[in-house]
Amino acid sequence: MNDLLKEYQERMFNISAYELAVTTVNLDSQTIAPPKGSDYRNDRLAYLAGELYSLQTDERLFVLIKELIDRDDTNQDIKKILYWQLKNLENMRCIPKDFYVEYSKLQMESQQNWETAKRNNDYGLFAPYLEKIIVMTKKILEYRQGELKGYDILLDDYEPGMNTEKYDKFFDLIREKLVPLIQKINHSPQIDDSFIYKNYPIYKQKIMMNKILEYIDFDFAAGVLLESEHPFTESISKYDNRITTHYYENNLISSMYSVIHEAGHANYNYSVRDDIAQTFCFNNMSSGMHESQSRLFENYLGRNYHFWDNLFPTLKELFPEQLAQTDQDKFIRAVNKVTPSLIRTEADELTYPLHILIRYEIEKGLFDGSIETKDLENIWNAKYKQYLGLTVPNAAEGILQDVHWSDGSFGYFPTYALGSSYAAQFMQAMSKDLDIDKCLAENEFSLLKKWLREHIHQYGGLYSPQQQIEIACGEKYNPQYYIDYLINKYSALYNL
Amino acid sequence: MNDLLKEYQERMFNISAYELAVTTVNLDSQTIAPPKGSDYRNDRLAYLAGELYSLQTDERLFVLIKELIDRDDTNQDIKKILYWQLKNLENMRCIPKDFYVEYSKLQMESQQNWETAKRNNDYGLFAPYLEKIIVMTKKILEYRQGELKGYDILLDDYEPGMNTEKYDKFFDLIREKLVPLIQKINHSPQIDDSFIYKNYPIYKQKIMMNKILEYIDFDFAAGVLLESEHPFTESISKYDNRITTHYYENNLISSMYSVIHEAGHANYNYSVRDDIAQTFCFNNMSSGMHESQSRLFENYLGRNYHFWDNLFPTLKELFPEQLAQTDQDKFIRAVNKVTPSLIRTEADELTYPLHILIRYEIEKGLFDGSIETKDLENIWNAKYKQYLGLTVPNAAEGILQDVHWSDGSFGYFPTYALGSSYAAQFMQAMSKDLDIDKCLAENEFSLLKKWLREHIHQYGGLYSPQQQIEIACGEKYNPQYYIDYLINKYSALYNL
Repeated sequence: MNDLLKEYQERMFNISAYELAVTTVNLDSQTIAPPKGSDYRNDRLAYLAGELYSLQTDERLFVLIKELIDRDDTNQDIKKILYWQLKNLENMRCIPKDFYVEYSKLQMESQQNWETAKRNNDYGLFAPYLEKIIVMTKKILEYRQGELKGYDILLDDYEPGMNTEKYDKFFDLIREKLVPLIQKINHSPQIDDSFIYKNYPIYKQKIMMNKILEYIDFDFAAGVLLESEHPFTESISKYDNRITTHYYENNLISSMYSVIHEAGHANYNYSVRDDIAQTFCFNNMSSGMHESQSRLFENYLGRNYHFWDNLFPTLKELFPEQLAQTDQDKFIRAVNKVTPSLIRTEADELTYPLHILIRYEIEKGLFDGSIETKDLENIWNAKYKQYLGLTVPNAAEGILQDVHWSDGSFGYFPTYALGSSYAAQFMQAMSKDLDIDKCLAENEFSLLKKWLREHIHQYGGLYSPQQQIEIACGEKYNPQYYIDYLINKYSALYNL
Repeated sequence: MNDLLKEYQERMFNISAYELAVTTVNLDSQTIAPPKGSDYRNDRLAYLAGELYSLQTDERLFVLIKELIDRDDTNQDIKKILYWQLKNLENMRCIPKDFYVEYSKLQMESQQNWETAKRNNDYGLFAPYLEKIIVMTKKILEYRQGELKGYDILLDDYEPGMNTEKYDKFFDLIREKLVPLIQKINHSPQIDDSFIYKNYPIYKQKIMMNKILEYIDFDFAAGVLLESEHPFTESISKYDNRITTHYYENNLISSMYSVIHEAGHANYNYSVRDDIAQTFCFNNMSSGMHESQSRLFENYLGRNYHFWDNLFPTLKELFPEQLAQTDQDKFIRAVNKVTPSLIRTEADELTYPLHILIRYEIEKGLFDGSIETKDLENIWNAKYKQYLGLTVPNAAEGILQDVHWSDGSFGYFPTYALGSSYAAQFMQAMSKDLDIDKCLAENEFSLLKKWLREHIHQYGGLYSPQQQIEIACGEKYNPQYYIDYLINKYSALYNL
C-alpha cells in the first residue's frame, strides 16, 4: 500500500470515529433519550458535527483524494469510491463551517419541534422551524456553485442523474396510467379489511416482529429492532444495523410492514462486500436505490401470498380471536387493498405514488418560490382533495405526518416512488433466475437475498443508479415495468 | 465573567461534547448494540477516548485552571470545582496518550470477554484479559508519582481520603461485630422466602418497575430504564439519567431492588444544583458517597415495611397466584431475610459487607503481589467457604459474577460497604428532621428526596466525603451507626 493511500485511510478512520459518535448520539436521541436532556445533547451534538465537518473538509483530504484518483496504481474500485466521495465532500466544503454547525443544530431542534407539533396536532408550532430550514437550505443552494440550480441540486444529491425534467416525465406517466386505474377500483366492490383495525396487544405484535425477522433471515447478532416516532434504519457498520418501528394497538399491519420495509434497507448495507464496507461506498447508495430494496421487501415480497405461507399460521396463533374469520387469502387481499388514504407510510402500493406526487409538487413550489410555508397546510389539504379525493381532518394526519422536511430532506420524497419503480425492474430480472413464489413458500428467503446480494447489494454505492440497474438487469432503467406490474396486479385483484 | 473563565468554560464545553460521545457509544454498547458490530465500534470508541484525553490533558487547560484557582475574583465554589478537576486531570496526564488509548480499548475488549466467559461459565476465557488489565493498571500506578503508592492510589481515587489502613480498620469492625451475628442467625429458625422464586413473567415485572419508579417520583422525562447484563446508572446530564436492570423470570425481587438501587444513583445526579450541574462536580462524587445514596434507596428505604404500603397491593394484583399465600408482613420478612449466598448483588444487607470484604482482600493481594490471576478462582472459592460457609458451584456464580474487574475498576468494591455505612449515618440525621416511616406510608417520597437534595445532592462532588458527611449530619463520619443499625434491625427480625 502506498503512503498516500495509507494517509487517506488513516484520515478516513478518524472521520468514521466522529461519524460513529454523531450517528450513535442521534440514534439514541430518536429512540431512547429522555426529552428533558435534549438541549444539553443538541448543543454538544452540533459541536461534534462541526468537528466532523472540519475533518471532512480539510484541504489535505482533497489533495489526497485527487492525487489517488490520478495515480495509475490506484485500484479501479477505489477510484470509483474516491470519485463519489470527492463529489460529496465538494458539496459540503462550499458551506462555511459556522453555517454548517448552525444548520445541524437547527435540524435537531426542528425535528424535535416537529414531534411536539405532531403530538399537539398544530402546524403553527412547526411552521417557523420549517421556514428557517427552507431559508437555510436555499442559502446552501446558493453556496453550491455548479451546473445544477435550485431544486435540481437537491434532486441530484439524493438520486445522481435525476432532475425536475426527468421527474416531471416520470410523474406524468404515473398520473396518466395510474389515476384512471385507481378511479376504476374506487368504483369496484371493496375488499373487507376491517379485521386489521381490531385490538392487537403490542407485546404480541413484538413477538410477531421477531417471527417475521427470523423468516427473512435477519441476523440478530448484527442488527436490532427498536422503537421510534417514525420508523427508520441506521446502519452504523456492516454488522450493526438498527431498524425501528412504531407500534399501534389498533392496527395489525402498520408495524409489520414498516419492519419488513426497514429490514430491506438494513439488508442492503449488511450485504455490502467486505472491501467496500469500510469505505465511503458503504452507505452512499442513492436514495432511490435504497428505497428500491426496502420496497422490494415490503411490497413485492411482503405482500406476496407465499410470503405468508410460513408466517400466517403464527399470526393466527398469536391472535386467534381477532383473526377467527380471516384466512390467508382474506388476509392477503386485505394487505393489498387499494384505498385512497391520508397517511403515506400506510398507503397501499397503488395510491402510494400519488402521495409522493403531492410532495414533489409542493417541494418544487417551495423552491421556485410559488409556495410559501404559511400557506402549506392549505395547499397540502387541497392537493389531497384533488388527487385522492380526501378531506384532511387535522395536521397530524396531513402536513405534519412526515419527518423529512423537519430535518431539511427536500428532494428525498421523489426517490420513494422512483425506488418502487426500480424494484419492479429488479423483480423482473430476479424472476428470470429464480422461482420467487417457490422460494417464499419453501422458507428459502435467503436464496432471494443471495440474488440481491450478488446482483446489487455487494457493490454498495460503487455505481450510479443507472449503472447499477444495467448491471443487475442487463438493460437500462425502464419505468414501464412498474406501470405494467401495478396494472396487472391490481386489475387481477379487482377483476377489472 | 473574565476572559480566563470564558476560555476555560469553552474548553469544558468541548470536552463535554466528547464525553457525551464516549458515554453514549458506551451506553449503547452495553444496552442495545448488536455483538457483531463491536470490533468496528471499539476501534473507533478508543480513538474518540484518545481525542477526549488530548483535550483533557492539554497544557493550556492546566494553566487556565491553576490561574483561576489563584485569582482573588474567582468564586469559592468554582475554586473547589477547579481543585477537584485539577487533581483528576493530573492523575490522567501522567499516563502517555498511546498507553491511555490502548488501555481504553483493552477495557472494552475485556468487558465483552467477561460477558462471554460468564455466559459460558468459564473463568479460563476471561483470565488472560484480567491479567492484561492488572498489568496495565500496575503500569498506570507506576506512572502516577505522588505520596500514595500501589493499591492506596486506587482506593483514594474512588474515595478521597481512604487507604488500606483505614479500610483494614473498617473491615475489622465488620468482621468482629457482624460475623457472630450472622452465625447466630444461621442457627435461628429460617424465614420462608420460597415465593420469591416462583415464575414471574417479565412483561409483568416491567409494569411493576414503572409503578415503583412512579412511587419514588422518578422523572420519566429526564430518565429512562433500560436492560443490560449488569445493572448500572449513567448520568449523561442532570436531566438525562439512564438506569438499567436485568430481569430474571424466576426471581421476584432481584430486578426490583436493582431498579431501586440504580434510581438512588440517578436521583443524586438529578438533584445537583443547576450551577454545579454543568461543571466537573456534576459527576465526581466519591464512589462511597454515590453508593450511600443507592443503598439508602435500596435498603434503608426499599426494605422498609412502609415503602410497600402503597406498592404491595399493586404487586399482589399483578401476581395474584404467585402471592396468594403472601401478605405484606411475610413479604417484608422475606426481602430482609439473612442467608449466606453466592451473588453479591443479590445478597441481603447483613451478609453483603462480607462479599465486599472478600473482594477487598483479593484486590489487596493482587496489588501486593501475593495473589496471581491464575489462582484467583480457587482463592475466591476458598474465601466464600471461609467467610460464608458456601461451596461455589461454578464461575458464573463465583469469580465471574461482577463486571468491575473486567474494566479495571480495582478499589471500587470497598466503597460499596463504606457507602452502606455512610447511608446509616445519613438516615440517622434525616430521622431527626422527618418521620421517615410516615413519609413512606403517606406516599410522600418526595419529602425524603427533598431532604437528601438539600443536605447532600445539591452539592454534587463539591466536597470530600468527610466534609459532605459533616455538612449533612453535623458530625464526623462514624461507622458505629452502621453496626448499630444492622445489629438492632436483625436482632429484632430474628428475635435474638
